[in-house]
Amino acid sequence: MRVAILGGDGFCGWPAALRLSAVGHDVSIVDNLSRRRIDVDLGTQSLTPIETIDTRLEDWQRRGGTRIGFVAIDVARDYARLLTFIREFRPEAIVHYAEQRSAPYSMRSSAEKRYTVENNVAATHNVLCAVVESELDCHVVHLGTMGVYGYSGTGPIPEGYARAKFEGLDGTWTEREILSPADPGSVYHMTKTLDQLLFSFYNKNDRIRITDLHQGVVWGTNTEECLRGEALVNRFDYDGEYGTVLNRFLVQAAVGHPLTVYGSGGQTRAFIHIRDSVECIRLAIEHPPSPGERVRIFNQMTETHRVADLAKIVARLSGAAIGEVPNPRREADSNELVVTRSGLQKLGLKPTTLEAGLLEEILGVAKKYAQRVDRERIASTSYWNAERRRAAEGKDPRSPPASSSTPARSPADR
Amino acid sequence: MRVAILGGDGFCGWPAALRLSAVGHDVSIVDNLSRRRIDVDLGTQSLTPIETIDTRLEDWQRRGGTRIGFVAIDVARDYARLLTFIREFRPEAIVHYAEQRSAPYSMRSSAEKRYTVENNVAATHNVLCAVVESELDCHVVHLGTMGVYGYSGTGPIPEGYARAKFEGLDGTWTEREILSPADPGSVYHMTKTLDQLLFSFYNKNDRIRITDLHQGVVWGTNTEECLRGEALVNRFDYDGEYGTVLNRFLVQAAVGHPLTVYGSGGQTRAFIHIRDSVECIRLAIEHPPSPGERVRIFNQMTETHRVADLAKIVARLSGAAIGEVPNPRREADSNELVVTRSGLQKLGLKPTTLEAGLLEEILGVAKKYAQRVDRERIASTSYWNAERRRAAEGKDPRSPPASSSTPARSPADR
Repeated sequence: MRVAILGGDGFCGWPAALRLSAVGHDVSIVDNLSRRRIDVDLGTQSLTPIETIDTRLEDWQRRGGTRIGFVAIDVARDYARLLTFIREFRPEAIVHYAEQRSAPYSMRSSAEKRYTVENNVAATHNVLCAVVESELDCHVVHLGTMGVYGYSGTGPIPEGYARAKFEGLDGTWTEREILSPADPGSVYHMTKTLDQLLFSFYNKNDRIRITDLHQGVVWGTNTEECLRGEALVNRFDYDGEYGTVLNRFLVQAAVGHPLTVYGSGGQTRAFIHIRDSVECIRLAIEHPPSPGERVRIFNQMTETHRVADLAKIVARLSGAAIGEVPNPRREADSNELVVTRSGLQKLGLKPTTLEAGLLEEILGVAKKYAQRVDRERIASTSYWNAERRRAAEGKDPRSPPASSSTPARSPADR
Repeated sequence: MRVAILGGDGFCGWPAALRLSAVGHDVSIVDNLSRRRIDVDLGTQSLTPIETIDTRLEDWQRRGGTRIGFVAIDVARDYARLLTFIREFRPEAIVHYAEQRSAPYSMRSSAEKRYTVENNVAATHNVLCAVVESELDCHVVHLGTMGVYGYSGTGPIPEGYARAKFEGLDGTWTEREILSPADPGSVYHMTKTLDQLLFSFYNKNDRIRITDLHQGVVWGTNTEECLRGEALVNRFDYDGEYGTVLNRFLVQAAVGHPLTVYGSGGQTRAFIHIRDSVECIRLAIEHPPSPGERVRIFNQMTETHRVADLAKIVARLSGAAIGEVPNPRREADSNELVVTRSGLQKLGLKPTTLEAGLLEEILGVAKKYAQRVDRERIASTSYWNAERRRAAEGKDPRSPPASSSTPARSPADR
């Protein structure tokens, strides 16, 4: 199958491109390398020494992989070139990763909020417009996030659509399925709720076939294909903006820094290993929705954990201490999370569990590259709003300043 | 009160600016004059001979009105100037009309789809970011549309929030209020559903006070203030892209053209007179939500009518014939519409009814300026999707071509 991977140079896109190529698909990557530029702007870099996209692709072929194409297009800003690419390559599936994907980055300031909204909405909308204009019957597979549902609900999280009862004119309640109500916790997460409405409209109006994968926090670094050669290594972000909670813990453990738990650590989140994430993409493109089917939505996660429990596991495996910092995010200090996830399991997903894969990350990645860690970059410098900033900076008389006994650097230290 | 009106040169914005100034508010208009540029691009113009914004504002002052400010800013593209304006003018309320507001225009081609999405989302998001960054406690009043709800529901349309029951983990159903599920019928309407999610997030995260007014189809041309002088006249659009259904009927009646009803004319829509629309804006800004209150949503409409019934009323008052053209839109041929609208009535709205105001439009506007009508511009040239285009052009073997006995020009004529 001809598969275009938009954002195929990124953390999820790169291993997905290799995986799909390895199982026999004809893969072309489209990327504007924005993630690498953001690293430059933030003064950060991947813990793993990733190669340029050209070197990566050459190495893949040198090691026996099928040629993977690469086109530098800004999907959000260069519609004409995107359309030309789609008309020429004629993809049967487009995997759309071409969005700014960090919640803390999206909350840094107006500039990053605006970039995230304008980039993500325009990228998704351009893809949909180009598919309509090309008149190709092309399946669009999009990476959403579990965060569209929010973490304040009381019931189980459905796969995209919730059964709900509404009161009719005659006072009786009738049941129908609706897109599960959105409750995003950051500008980034909000853009994925906007994407959902774009998909819903273009599916209804133009019958585009779409699969939206609401992914949990991705952990792990390398897939089988990334491990074929040093130049194929995947990126590993540990900085306060792009590093996910588990990656930050792993790096902190490797350099002997206390694990920075936000608040009580009672936040429960959904997780998935990068190996399973790319396998889900394969399953999604190989099982497209039928023509006329509504947007197919799957929850792409395999297990849920409390942040405090993750810290305990990492501490146990590595001997690290556990610290606590004020939470810069506006979120519930603690939540339950029950997620429906039968869709991808029915298609055959066999998960890698956290317990099984974590030691490999500690030894194979975090400790291996520990000399590359920049300790100054681990703390987040993004505050969710003015109130949180004042609280963290100790300027708000209503909120006490961060305790001086806090072992970790507070976000205000930078 | 200091009130900024974004899009204050447009059809709703201009009479709103005059009205708020007339009742004693300190008004400043922000507009990039995009609506006038689109007229140039489409080769259309307002039936009424509208003056430049400078002449309009000078005339207002000459006739005793309080000075109204004007700043040319592209709200969607020039964030820095928008922020500077807000910091200097320090508005207590911002009325946000700065969006592309035609559904058919938003469906013309990829270019207009993309412009509508990128302009409307960026404009709304920039306003919200600028309010956060300015740290002003400024009430944002936005013009939404009844079209966010769609026209395929079976129950009554609530004011923004619907009561719905969801099944919990223990199998019992519990009721909560949710944003009424979105079901937009065009790219334009879709942007207003995106706006809703932006408002919801910024209200939750930054406690911005927001009123979102889901407006029906606005009819009528002039308000009391617009009638104070010829140079203050409001715009009247009758072309296939920007003319609302009633305006098109009025102009068709004035020039002896059959009224172009789409399909069976069974589509029921909500309506409001422009006088009531600007009065609603006054009520909304003078009754802001309390700090911490969720986004306040009102349905801004006063009556509902079937399109076929509107055609009959106009035919009766004017003697016009009624025609029928294939519907270029993807919408139900017929629908019921029961709308909750207690919010603005509680604040004191006294509506102008269609029966009472229609003759004034026919005689005072449509017939008065009939010599300015360009008959070639009345039909829409926008198709909702490829299927509709093929059907209207008679290219699809599954759909018969438009009957040759159809009295009106079909959209394919242009």
